Amino acid sequence: MNKFRWVLVLPIVLAVLAASSGTSWGAEGESGASLESVVAVQKYNRGIHVMAMLLVGFGFLMVFVRRYGLSTVTATYLLVSIAIPLYIVINSLGVLGEPKIEVDRLLLAEFAAASLLICAGAPLGRLKMSQYLLLGVFFIPCYMANEWILLEGGLGLIPQGGFVDTGGSILIHAFGALFGLGVVMTMTTEQEFKTPIESDSTSDRYSMLGSMVLWLFWPSFCAGLVAPDMVPYTAVNVIISLCGATIATYFASVALRGKICIADIANAALAGGVAIGSTCDHATHTMAFIIGLLGGTLSTYGFAVIQEKVQGMVKGIDTCGVTNLHGWPGIFGGVAAIFVVEGLDKGPQLMGIGIAIVLALITGYVTGKILAAFGRRIKPYEDSEEFITEEGPATA
Amino acid sequence: MNKFRWVLVLPIVLAVLAASSGTSWGAEGESGASLESVVAVQKYNRGIHVMAMLLVGFGFLMVFVRRYGLSTVTATYLLVSIAIPLYIVINSLGVLGEPKIEVDRLLLAEFAAASLLICAGAPLGRLKMSQYLLLGVFFIPCYMANEWILLEGGLGLIPQGGFVDTGGSILIHAFGALFGLGVVMTMTTEQEFKTPIESDSTSDRYSMLGSMVLWLFWPSFCAGLVAPDMVPYTAVNVIISLCGATIATYFASVALRGKICIADIANAALAGGVAIGSTCDHATHTMAFIIGLLGGTLSTYGFAVIQEKVQGMVKGIDTCGVTNLHGWPGIFGGVAAIFVVEGLDKGPQLMGIGIAIVLALITGYVTGKILAAFGRRIKPYEDSEEFITEEGPATA
Amino acid sequence: MNKFRWVLVLPIVLAVLAASSGTSWGAEGESGASLESVVAVQKYNRGIHVMAMLLVGFGFLMVFVRRYGLSTVTATYLLVSIAIPLYIVINSLGVLGEPKIEVDRLLLAEFAAASLLICAGAPLGRLKMSQYLLLGVFFIPCYMANEWILLEGGLGLIPQGGFVDTGGSILIHAFGALFGLGVVMTMTTEQEFKTPIESDSTSDRYSMLGSMVLWLFWPSFCAGLVAPDMVPYTAVNVIISLCGATIATYFASVALRGKICIADIANAALAGGVAIGSTCDHATHTMAFIIGLLGGTLSTYGFAVIQEKVQGMVKGIDTCGVTNLHGWPGIFGGVAAIFVVEGLDKGPQLMGIGIAIVLALITGYVTGKILAAFGRRIKPYEDSEEFITEEGPATA
Repeated sequence: MNKFRWVLVLPIVLAVLAASSGTSWGAEGESGASLESVVAVQKYNRGIHVMAMLLVGFGFLMVFVRRYGLSTVTATYLLVSIAIPLYIVINSLGVLGEPKIEVDRLLLAEFAAASLLICAGAPLGRLKMSQYLLLGVFFIPCYMANEWILLEGGLGLIPQGGFVDTGGSILIHAFGALFGLGVVMTMTTEQEFKTPIESDSTSDRYSMLGSMVLWLFWPSFCAGLVAPDMVPYTAVNVIISLCGATIATYFASVALRGKICIADIANAALAGGVAIGSTCDHATHTMAFIIGLLGGTLSTYGFAVIQEKVQGMVKGIDTCGVTNLHGWPGIFGGVAAIFVVEGLDKGPQLMGIGIAIVLALITGYVTGKILAAFGRRIKPYEDSEEFITEEGPATA
Repeated sequence: MNKFRWVLVLPIVLAVLAASSGTSWGAEGESGASLESVVAVQKYNRGIHVMAMLLVGFGFLMVFVRRYGLSTVTATYLLVSIAIPLYIVINSLGVLGEPKIEVDRLLLAEFAAASLLICAGAPLGRLKMSQYLLLGVFFIPCYMANEWILLEGGLGLIPQGGFVDTGGSILIHAFGALFGLGVVMTMTTEQEFKTPIESDSTSDRYSMLGSMVLWLFWPSFCAGLVAPDMVPYTAVNVIISLCGATIATYFASVALRGKICIADIANAALAGGVAIGSTCDHATHTMAFIIGLLGGTLSTYGFAVIQEKVQGMVKGIDTCGVTNLHGWPGIFGGVAAIFVVEGLDKGPQLMGIGIAIVLALITGYVTGKILAAFGRRIKPYEDSEEFITEEGPATA
Repeated sequence: MNKFRWVLVLPIVLAVLAASSGTSWGAEGESGASLESVVAVQKYNRGIHVMAMLLVGFGFLMVFVRRYGLSTVTATYLLVSIAIPLYIVINSLGVLGEPKIEVDRLLLAEFAAASLLICAGAPLGRLKMSQYLLLGVFFIPCYMANEWILLEGGLGLIPQGGFVDTGGSILIHAFGALFGLGVVMTMTTEQEFKTPIESDSTSDRYSMLGSMVLWLFWPSFCAGLVAPDMVPYTAVNVIISLCGATIATYFASVALRGKICIADIANAALAGGVAIGSTCDHATHTMAFIIGLLGGTLSTYGFAVIQEKVQGMVKGIDTCGVTNLHGWPGIFGGVAAIFVVEGLDKGPQLMGIGIAIVLALITGYVTGKILAAFGRRIKPYEDSEEFITEEGPATA
């Protein structure tokens, strides 16, 4: 750990940055109730739902790696704790996009944290705790740059409003997954590549708990910033798409493997949420169901067939298979918008998808190189290296 | 599995049905904020709470069967995923009741899914995955028929408004439990009857997690469609009833068994929520507390004493004891309305209860016969038959 | 158990009290939607979040004691079930404070239940189930007396509005923890003091689940009764403080112990929520982050260093280390208000803190004496003494 003592400066830097970002980061004023404030409280409430997805959802979905459970949940805590304040500070400073109102910024910060957790699923088990913190520090500005370019006309590449991605199929899911793929391209050693990730035999139900928490709060994720009038409609679309993906995953898993693989169910059932993201407030319910069926099938096919090929190509291990759950279904969702959203110009939409893919892979690759400079391992990590694992009094 | 390949047509049929149900299943239009839309978002929010009950609540409460954990959580996923779209499609078509507005329909669909999960708790461990899907397909229309008859004057048997059941003691709990009892009447083989369901020794805390999730979100279940002015009052009634049932369960469990049985705590504590359903927005808090005390006592008595007799009578095994948690306390709650709700005509109320009981048992029995035609087992199922259970790479 | 049969009268006494508290405990009337009612529903919704903290959060955070898991979760259920109705009844009677409106009373009752669960964390593992119930019966009036004195000018000691503690750093956390400390002062036998509490080796992930549920719903806890206009701002403060505490805990745990202790992460990460309580709607975000950093560091230091000294001083065992998580960070939060809240008179604030500390210790000590009269143990309890622990049919 000695080598990493310097990360101690992180909180201090963050606090200084925070202090310098001035009034928008300070108290706001009067109290009371109005239709506007009530709408903001409803957004905040969806923000709590998203927080449940970040901690319990992602945290427990990723808990399957053998002898790495403590590391996984601790990393989840740390990644969220670095991502949210960092996003809020940077946005308050007006860098990489206009400063947002308090509650919108909270939700956007949570979306960034979600993307970071997706990204971290790829190199999971091959980083020290301090490297996860570093990963967060590098990831968030890259994520914000992408968001700024695609949604706010940053660099003048895409006209504002030309890119449709309400629930973040591209901005959150595909970007995070491909950034993670970029990281593992450079992080994975040859020997590591030959050592398969071992699952913990008692972790199935934890994974399913994480999966279910993600599934059930997903409507709040996609409808997070949607206007009240459209929230129920959007939510129903997301639920229907998730139902479609869940049913499709069951059939696809049996068809592709002979028996049901519980990891398919825990993961690919969620691909309906990933894929409906871009069009969740535009699709008809029928389209949402079909997008879910296709998303679930694509994701299961990814876990069963594509993953091995991709890993061979990039010579890297994607521990949680995030490309299968968030990568391909995310891109599929972004492309589906061209067919689903009336009057959408396909030029900016496709260009946005292309930018996100390229930016994610490049910045991920560079980040991986930097992380590797702080130490890379031949063998997977185990809890015992960074955690006190001999059981004793909980408070000793 | 080969025999069940035909269920592959299910999603396709559902999609076609969906497409045919026209505009009410399509996009709805303008965006904005109004008091009305804010109220709808609050209903949606309670819908998310109910979703937590469906997946994490019911899923983990039922996870106790030995070597059947993967099957239980997967079945939960599949049952929810078939029930919700099916209910939405049928209601959109205007069959078995007027089409509802988007958010109300979502909640009603979730209630139907809850009733289906209750029902599935009876034959749990004796069905293949594909048979659970089939169970859902048969259950939902029967459930909707009952709902239509009791609440919307279907078949002209009960005058609209004559039957009081805000939180679904009868419509959701008793119906689901007795349908399940009907199913097991015909599904259970003699040899199966002699083989007790084995509990998984490590599952107690999972069951308690499921139980607690059900307990804590129950107020949102009962107040799901209640007008804003009455939500806090209704919620407090539900909470007080659950508190009463929890305390009563502790005393009853010790009194009836000598020591506390954790399955009593996990299950019967919830009977307060079941029993207060019919009168949750009418009872005084004192009445709610008493209904909870009685509901918890009745349910514990059911698990400790009645169940064995009922199983002997119907020659069927009720794996989760759903009659004890949802059956008798549900009927008790429906009958309690006669004493609690001022000005309620007891004729239609009792008639409604009677119709629900008879309809549930008959349609359940017939459904069981049909399911049995697709295969019935002598021994309980184990995960290994339908799932890949040798632990390997999670993404292999 | 025979000795404790008399607690059977508890529910009856509660019901009689309830009945006597008249109309405010009865039905309230008309239905509809208004801005006011919508605001109340949003409070109710935060009340559900708090309920998730009470049951799943506290319940599973405390589940680490070896062979005591069933007792812990059952005690959680019972403590909540006794606290909430008791608080509601007493407040309805107008004793120890003005009767509140329905939804505010629900939240206040849940806060009282939270404080009780914190308190119970200290003697955890050394009480019978019936003693937990008794603990609740004694704790709630003491808690309400403290609340009345500090917030409503009870006994004329502190001017109304002179004491600032929006999120309950003092009222809920410090009071509960110090009451618990008072209880263990008298409850712990010398031999017990020498026997360390053993952790269950498989409980780490359960504890982290509890911790995460507490973390993510904490904003709703602190903003429970805050006006809509201030909810997002307050929530962001709480989240930022929790992020700060989580990061600080990681560094402090490594610095103080050489490696990460998972119990630190699960507990001290929450100290940001405890410490920001008093000032959650007043602090700037920067201050919130700093309060979180300090709170997390203080709490980790408490677990690693202070606890042993305190236990030596009071000759009592604090099973869950509640003084470290809720005690010192709570007091720190209350004191921080003097520096953070503009125009706050430090006299009443410090006096309030002093009163809370003294009252908690004294009433806790007396309660401990009374509980001890109903039996005290030399060895820690195990599930098998009060629970049926041989695995058999769940419904046997």
